[in-house]
Amino acid sequence: MSKSPITSPLPAAERDATGKVLQEALVDLVDLSLVAKQAHWNVVGRNFRSVHLQLDELVAAAREYTDQVAERAAAIGVSPDGRASTVAKHSGVPEFATGWQSDTEVIAVIAATVEAVVKRMRARIAKTDDTDLVTQDLIIELTAKLEEAHWMWQAQLA
Amino acid sequence: MSKSPITSPLPAAERDATGKVLQEALVDLVDLSLVAKQAHWNVVGRNFRSVHLQLDELVAAAREYTDQVAERAAAIGVSPDGRASTVAKHSGVPEFATGWQSDTEVIAVIAATVEAVVKRMRARIAKTDDTDLVTQDLIIELTAKLEEAHWMWQAQLA
Amino acid sequence: MSKSPITSPLPAAERDATGKVLQEALVDLVDLSLVAKQAHWNVVGRNFRSVHLQLDELVAAAREYTDQVAERAAAIGVSPDGRASTVAKHSGVPEFATGWQSDTEVIAVIAATVEAVVKRMRARIAKTDDTDLVTQDLIIELTAKLEEAHWMWQAQLA
Amino acid sequence: MSKSPITSPLPAAERDATGKVLQEALVDLVDLSLVAKQAHWNVVGRNFRSVHLQLDELVAAAREYTDQVAERAAAIGVSPDGRASTVAKHSGVPEFATGWQSDTEVIAVIAATVEAVVKRMRARIAKTDDTDLVTQDLIIELTAKLEEAHWMWQAQLA
Amino acid sequence: MSKSPITSPLPAAERDATGKVLQEALVDLVDLSLVAKQAHWNVVGRNFRSVHLQLDELVAAAREYTDQVAERAAAIGVSPDGRASTVAKHSGVPEFATGWQSDTEVIAVIAATVEAVVKRMRARIAKTDDTDLVTQDLIIELTAKLEEAHWMWQAQLA
Amino acid sequence: MSKSPITSPLPAAERDATGKVLQEALVDLVDLSLVAKQAHWNVVGRNFRSVHLQLDELVAAAREYTDQVAERAAAIGVSPDGRASTVAKHSGVPEFATGWQSDTEVIAVIAATVEAVVKRMRARIAKTDDTDLVTQDLIIELTAKLEEAHWMWQAQLA
Amino acid sequence: MSKSPITSPLPAAERDATGKVLQEALVDLVDLSLVAKQAHWNVVGRNFRSVHLQLDELVAAAREYTDQVAERAAAIGVSPDGRASTVAKHSGVPEFATGWQSDTEVIAVIAATVEAVVKRMRARIAKTDDTDLVTQDLIIELTAKLEEAHWMWQAQLA
Amino acid sequence: MSKSPITSPLPAAERDATGKVLQEALVDLVDLSLVAKQAHWNVVGRNFRSVHLQLDELVAAAREYTDQVAERAAAIGVSPDGRASTVAKHSGVPEFATGWQSDTEVIAVIAATVEAVVKRMRARIAKTDDTDLVTQDLIIELTAKLEEAHWMWQAQLA
Amino acid sequence: MSKSPITSPLPAAERDATGKVLQEALVDLVDLSLVAKQAHWNVVGRNFRSVHLQLDELVAAAREYTDQVAERAAAIGVSPDGRASTVAKHSGVPEFATGWQSDTEVIAVIAATVEAVVKRMRARIAKTDDTDLVTQDLIIELTAKLEEAHWMWQAQLA
Amino acid sequence: MSKSPITSPLPAAERDATGKVLQEALVDLVDLSLVAKQAHWNVVGRNFRSVHLQLDELVAAAREYTDQVAERAAAIGVSPDGRASTVAKHSGVPEFATGWQSDTEVIAVIAATVEAVVKRMRARIAKTDDTDLVTQDLIIELTAKLEEAHWMWQAQLA
Amino acid sequence: MSKSPITSPLPAAERDATGKVLQEALVDLVDLSLVAKQAHWNVVGRNFRSVHLQLDELVAAAREYTDQVAERAAAIGVSPDGRASTVAKHSGVPEFATGWQSDTEVIAVIAATVEAVVKRMRARIAKTDDTDLVTQDLIIELTAKLEEAHWMWQAQLA
Amino acid sequence: MSKSPITSPLPAAERDATGKVLQEALVDLVDLSLVAKQAHWNVVGRNFRSVHLQLDELVAAAREYTDQVAERAAAIGVSPDGRASTVAKHSGVPEFATGWQSDTEVIAVIAATVEAVVKRMRARIAKTDDTDLVTQDLIIELTAKLEEAHWMWQAQLA
Repeated sequence: MSKSPITSPLPAAERDATGKVLQEALVDLVDLSLVAKQAHWNVVGRNFRSVHLQLDELVAAAREYTDQVAERAAAIGVSPDGRASTVAKHSGVPEFATGWQSDTEVIAVIAATVEAVVKRMRARIAKTDDTDLVTQDLIIELTAKLEEAHWMWQAQLA
Repeated sequence: MSKSPITSPLPAAERDATGKVLQEALVDLVDLSLVAKQAHWNVVGRNFRSVHLQLDELVAAAREYTDQVAERAAAIGVSPDGRASTVAKHSGVPEFATGWQSDTEVIAVIAATVEAVVKRMRARIAKTDDTDLVTQDLIIELTAKLEEAHWMWQAQLA
Repeated sequence: MSKSPITSPLPAAERDATGKVLQEALVDLVDLSLVAKQAHWNVVGRNFRSVHLQLDELVAAAREYTDQVAERAAAIGVSPDGRASTVAKHSGVPEFATGWQSDTEVIAVIAATVEAVVKRMRARIAKTDDTDLVTQDLIIELTAKLEEAHWMWQAQLA
Repeated sequence: MSKSPITSPLPAAERDATGKVLQEALVDLVDLSLVAKQAHWNVVGRNFRSVHLQLDELVAAAREYTDQVAERAAAIGVSPDGRASTVAKHSGVPEFATGWQSDTEVIAVIAATVEAVVKRMRARIAKTDDTDLVTQDLIIELTAKLEEAHWMWQAQLA
Repeated sequence: MSKSPITSPLPAAERDATGKVLQEALVDLVDLSLVAKQAHWNVVGRNFRSVHLQLDELVAAAREYTDQVAERAAAIGVSPDGRASTVAKHSGVPEFATGWQSDTEVIAVIAATVEAVVKRMRARIAKTDDTDLVTQDLIIELTAKLEEAHWMWQAQLA
Repeated sequence: MSKSPITSPLPAAERDATGKVLQEALVDLVDLSLVAKQAHWNVVGRNFRSVHLQLDELVAAAREYTDQVAERAAAIGVSPDGRASTVAKHSGVPEFATGWQSDTEVIAVIAATVEAVVKRMRARIAKTDDTDLVTQDLIIELTAKLEEAHWMWQAQLA
Repeated sequence: MSKSPITSPLPAAERDATGKVLQEALVDLVDLSLVAKQAHWNVVGRNFRSVHLQLDELVAAAREYTDQVAERAAAIGVSPDGRASTVAKHSGVPEFATGWQSDTEVIAVIAATVEAVVKRMRARIAKTDDTDLVTQDLIIELTAKLEEAHWMWQAQLA
Repeated sequence: MSKSPITSPLPAAERDATGKVLQEALVDLVDLSLVAKQAHWNVVGRNFRSVHLQLDELVAAAREYTDQVAERAAAIGVSPDGRASTVAKHSGVPEFATGWQSDTEVIAVIAATVEAVVKRMRARIAKTDDTDLVTQDLIIELTAKLEEAHWMWQAQLA
Repeated sequence: MSKSPITSPLPAAERDATGKVLQEALVDLVDLSLVAKQAHWNVVGRNFRSVHLQLDELVAAAREYTDQVAERAAAIGVSPDGRASTVAKHSGVPEFATGWQSDTEVIAVIAATVEAVVKRMRARIAKTDDTDLVTQDLIIELTAKLEEAHWMWQAQLA
Repeated sequence: MSKSPITSPLPAAERDATGKVLQEALVDLVDLSLVAKQAHWNVVGRNFRSVHLQLDELVAAAREYTDQVAERAAAIGVSPDGRASTVAKHSGVPEFATGWQSDTEVIAVIAATVEAVVKRMRARIAKTDDTDLVTQDLIIELTAKLEEAHWMWQAQLA
Repeated sequence: MSKSPITSPLPAAERDATGKVLQEALVDLVDLSLVAKQAHWNVVGRNFRSVHLQLDELVAAAREYTDQVAERAAAIGVSPDGRASTVAKHSGVPEFATGWQSDTEVIAVIAATVEAVVKRMRARIAKTDDTDLVTQDLIIELTAKLEEAHWMWQAQLA
Repeated sequence: MSKSPITSPLPAAERDATGKVLQEALVDLVDLSLVAKQAHWNVVGRNFRSVHLQLDELVAAAREYTDQVAERAAAIGVSPDGRASTVAKHSGVPEFATGWQSDTEVIAVIAATVEAVVKRMRARIAKTDDTDLVTQDLIIELTAKLEEAHWMWQAQLA
């Protein structure tokens, strides 16, 4: 379909700018959910159980906001793209190492990963301030959740 | 970690053969869940609502078995790999088109996609017959679920 | 009672401007809930069941925000008015036709109706930016919900 | 649509008489739910909380039977009409005053309002005795509920 | 057992007449539940999912009232008979065709089937008016449910 | 208070006749709940557990309808009286023996007790046919429940 | 049955003394539940709703401990007696007046009634100190609950 | 429809052999659910309550597997047939006697009935070993459930 | 570990005496739960179902208090021991016979078994009166539960 | 620890300014929850029950936002302080009087207390507009809740 | 109010002595809940997540018993005082340090804190033995809970 | 009883061989549940809470499969034996040490214990391949669960 079948509540320029922000956030969130699952399966070490459980909470949060971000894109008339190849190519999330990982490494890596995503989301809050307050509200909400997660992972490094 | 920290209940040969089967199944299932979500967000047409809801049931099933398959690999001492780049490179699931899709196209594509995954899973049932009956039982169970899904998608093409 | 028994957290000018926005939003939302129920009962056609169910979700959303908007008005010291005669006189929601309606008509009409309400709500987001950020947050939240609903109805027209 | 797409389980005369009863009951019930919500938002006074909660129970009951009455009309092949303008024009429910209301006034007014609706419903029980016992059973059930509500409001006047 | 071990709250004539009504209703309802399940499994076509789900709601309703009708017969001292051979011989429900069925055919056939059962139930309401008001109340209640189902199936034919 | 503070939806004669029926039903139901609890505590014998549990279901049913009957009396403006002394003086329920009771005796006594109450309720259905159909509907509903209970107790005597 | 079929964990003297305490407590609690229900149905006045609801919480507490006390008697081999005639003859609970009662009277009467029952229960705590600590624990627990209720009723008199 | 609209994951020969097994199992399970309901309604005797409840658990199990078996047939491209006439003609379940049945007879008959079905299911486990392991897994699972039921019924004959 | 890592809220003498009581109670309760499960699996006879279910309630109670008793021991600084060999050696619970058991035997044996445990627990209530009121409260609570169970088993012997 | 172990998503100046706002809000909210509990326990008078229940809703809201505010502080790298001495020293909430309080006084005092907290929160919304939109969103949300509570308390003064 | 509006079930001396015990327990429990929350927010270190969660369970227990203790005071006619200033002045709970705390420190501090509270509660059990057994029962119950918590915190120090 | 009252769905040789497998599995599982509870109570150390919780999940799994294995034995006509003395004598589970245990030791011991049980279960899968596929399916299912548990315990050793 060459033309969007969904009319937008936003003017074209705002729609395009906001849609770009949402598409990039979507890719980050899909990748975050895959990375967290990868860590969930491959973590070993003394704190295995605690880290294993905490990672699934991160997966749940990432999936929940993936869906909200993608459906927000659709709601403003922009087709979201969360396919594996798109994620592999465009994600801003650092790649997770292969194989079994010790719990101490996992904690450090996940804390850094969430921090990286938070930084990118904060830039998106700034961008949407001019294009769509409704979208901004969603990015603010998910950033709050990610910053909470960041604190909880980082607290284990102290 | 060069050596698996998890000892296997299987002899090395059976562990390796079974682990390969599980790793391939894992990649297919992660991709299936991403494809089904992609369709969930991009479908349009008269039957939007029904197809949108049905796709989320497929996502739920794919995610549920993704987790079981990955944790089964871990349980036999094989590190599972479900990262975006691995999935993008090794998935046996046909790629889903970009942009909005009509509901009729979605139904046909998803029916064909599930059928392709079923075929690959049936081959895995045969392979695990000789290497690990516990793993085979899991593949049988998820194949039953996928074949049920296949019928329900295909029934809409009639 | 000539004077409001509820003191306002806002200065008089902001209270009046915000109260006007909320009263108008209230009327639109009550009418939207009645229109959606009317369609829920009178729709016929091949997709009866799907549309019938989807309309009740719209009713539930409209009722939920009706209550929040009216109670927000009360909270800033402005008496809300959601009576039938007030709604009949002041609603900005297009009137729904009388008698049985085909599902295709219902989908088109409801998509257009929600679009009209969204437009009015977006104007209210702008207005409350200067008068009350707390009220604005509520209007942003309900607009997000309505724009999601709009996408889902419009997707069926493609 | 000039002709009802729903065939009736009743002969034409019984269908028309019963349909008229149901349409009038529908209008009363929609209005009762709007009046009770209006009071719910505007009541003030010493017993605010208790009256505020009790009104929402009345709203819930009115909405529940609104839906059952409208769907019963549809089930006998008569298109129900519960739109704001229809309700504003044809309701037999006394109009509720504008602005904040003291709890004592609200109790007296709501008791009288429910009493008025009960009287009209009792006449409908008599009418449906000859036209449709299935519809009569529904009107009997909702009258029992309204008479219970009437007792509870009136008990506060003693 | 030649004599009923359950004494009846009704005189013999009323018991026998009411028991006959209940036995016939029981057979119709068992058959309706089997027909609806048969359709549930064999429907194909564009609206497969919606029809498949709606049929299971009909099965649930038919089973619920099957049980109530049979237990009402027992309660008035009449042994109910819902065995396959009895149902096959005495049911008033039109036979459902063999093999896969298109969704459009299924909707038409089920609408007609429910209509046929409603007609028979309405006659039973009339009969029990003279023999047992308690049984009549049950038949009225299940007729209301069947007429609601009839409307919902028929609405899809419009 | 010499005068009822609750106005009645019924004319005085119907109110008085219906009120008398409800007061008598109330006394029977309170006593039935006390008798069933007495049996619940004092039954012994091989089937202790089954009878003990079944008696509590009878208590629950009796209490539920006690409340509905008393509140129906209030709803028609008649003060209900369910005090111990009133029940002891006016109940139509046969007195239950003192001390431990064998399960076989309990089953026979409870079956006979429920049968006695059913007979009295059926007379009340007849009486309310002329005075208040809304009250009659309640008596019909509770009679259905009591007749079901009667069957289940009596079935154990066969 | 002349002899108790239930052997006691207590010596005969302790069993008899404890059994007497439990029987008297049982009668008080049954009567309390009937008095509270009577008030629940007959209260009128400005605070009707609040008092009506609070009385049902008292009914629930009284019924819960009625059951525990009666079953504790059975557990020590003493047949409990909670029949209407026994309660009417032996209750220590003051009789509740006939007819409608104002909410202020109800609050005062119920506060006094609960206070009377508390006094009798405190004497029973003292008595069971020498005969059965297990029974005493139950009486202490229910006294705590009654004293809490007493506070809440009395607080409304201040 | 002359040709199955559902393509099979199995080769034609395996599909036909497996489909035949599933169709026969389906007929047995529908009949088992009807026989168990028939017994549920017609049992009398000292153990009425226990047997009545246990029969409904059997009904629930039979219905659950009826559905799974029928949908498995559909999933392999074979149209299932569970209509009354088909069941009456082809069931391998012994016919249940007419009229009221003593609990002792019911227990013996149901134990024998379940035993007969188990025998037929065990033969089906053997047959599907060569044709479809996914179907075999389902038959194994339902046989486990039926053998558990068989033990529980037979235990009452000891 | 030669020294308890958990400091006690009790002086050494009270800790040791109370710890001994708890350890003995623990062993009895573990064995009671195993005996009740053994009976649950091996009972046969007319009342199989009722006894089978009642035994699982006893298992649940025994397990619940096993855990509370063991954790109370830990809380006062005493390591609990509930291993199979300890239980086999030190339990005061009579051994349960091997093989299938008739329901009448099971009822008699379980009633006697619970009675034996009650006797031992009552002695523990006396002992803890001087050493730890907090522990005594727990033993009183579990004795109440066991005496209730004892009544219910014994009632079936009458 | 002299240095925060949690890195902040905000620059130092914004972190400090936002952290100060959150710390002050935290102290107010802890105190509000203690004041509301104090009133919950000490209120007496005609409306005791209603006020007692409403106060617990205020406690629940205050506790919920206490936690969110404190964890938001932690998330931006600022250690929150909600200890009794800190609250006693720095709270902006007016002190609640000692001893029993009449319901009328409680309503007036709580309305004034919530109003005072709202005023302070509104200033915090303004301050965070420049320092952290994510924190502002939380303060807006809790202010909305407090203003709703304020309306409900104040409505009882009218 | 100079005089308590709540009459006491206890004589004056017992009331005063018991009231003093309850007031002191109340202050300790409020402070314990604040200390545990403070730790919940400020803990850092490898075991952050586990300690963070466990602290919230302690908060929940402390709050639950705070409420029961305060309401017990009210029930015996003594006004409870749980305000921040009272707690800050009279608490027997050791003050918690300011700022972030390592998990090892938190575990040691909380174990010691709970131990201190337990000691004070044990003294209260002794005191209430002579003044009020109902209050004593509550202190025993909460001491059991605190000692369980103490074990679980201390176990982490081993 | 010299002869099994339960007829077997298996020929005698298969029944005996399968029964032996099930009896041995039963003993292992009972012991595993007791060992896990023992560890649950006696573990101390930094990871106390995590290990304590994880052990209760193992207890729950062991108990669940204990019941299924015992009831499967009964279902094939073999009396199961799970008494303390039988378990103490025949268990293949390594004995757990007495007294408090450090968390590191507990993790190592439980990992080794589960590994030992898994090995024995895998041999049982092989044996039942020839004697009973229904039983084999159960052993496969519980082995999958145990191997998952094994991975999770072992992961903590890495």
